[in-house]
Amino acid sequence: MQNRILTPEAIVGFFVGEGTFGVESGKDDKYQLGWRIRPYVSVNIRKDDESILQEMTRIIGCGHIYELDYGRYERYKSRGWKPQVRWKVSNIDDLSNKVVPFFKQHGIFGMKAQAFGIFSQIVEAKYKKEDRNPKMLEHMRALARSLQAINKRGI
Amino acid sequence: MQNRILTPEAIVGFFVGEGTFGVESGKDDKYQLGWRIRPYVSVNIRKDDESILQEMTRIIGCGHIYELDYGRYERYKSRGWKPQVRWKVSNIDDLSNKVVPFFKQHGIFGMKAQAFGIFSQIVEAKYKKEDRNPKMLEHMRALARSLQAINKRGI
Repeated sequence: MQNRILTPEAIVGFFVGEGTFGVESGKDDKYQLGWRIRPYVSVNIRKDDESILQEMTRIIGCGHIYELDYGRYERYKSRGWKPQVRWKVSNIDDLSNKVVPFFKQHGIFGMKAQAFGIFSQIVEAKYKKEDRNPKMLEHMRALARSLQAINKRGI
Repeated sequence: MQNRILTPEAIVGFFVGEGTFGVESGKDDKYQLGWRIRPYVSVNIRKDDESILQEMTRIIGCGHIYELDYGRYERYKSRGWKPQVRWKVSNIDDLSNKVVPFFKQHGIFGMKAQAFGIFSQIVEAKYKKEDRNPKMLEHMRALARSLQAINKRGI
């Protein structure tokens, strides 16, 4: 059963439980106005369920999977914490052309739909390079704060 | 979007992320052989996503939703912990006639499929009242230990 082919709806349901529509927002001199706005989607799960992430990569058509074996995860090994893997997309073309359309088409639901509404605005603005315009950047930073507040509210 | 009608596949995907195929196994004088084996399915989520549980109740056709506002949850309020609700089915007829067939039909996936394989054996045995036969009860207790070990392995 682990190798069954998943449907897009199953992926969406799984993402509602386990995924994050996130955004980094912070000072960064490498960016034109000295501020980085970087949306991403990610899912962290136990390594033994990595096949689910492979299905997500295949169905959504983008994303990288990598092991989380550093930092805070190390400390948990002694308590029976299992290795984790993360699926992540932060490439703006992939987010704009694949990820956002996927979740729009297949019906993201629950409170996660609220996060998605803000997330997709950030992706669209970033895709149009609005973070290079001071006024638009301010708006994007406000959207980022909203999204981070929603995500923080989680458990 | 919160009120959209979910598909069974979306429910299954959500359950893979958030649900539990569980079993209670312990001494209990109210049971014929002094031991209680009680399978259940449950999902705990934030109260503001309760509409998802209402959809599960409607689509799977059973289960109760109740608030988790006692004990260990109380302590978390001061840290920004949000009220939680639980959807749970422990009625053996519902488990055997609705829950197990639902997940069989709609393709439970990932490692959760392993838990489901054992869970459905426990449900079937319980449905046939095999917990009233000492030898069968031993077998059910072994299955319960396996399921609990799988669930404990979680994060």
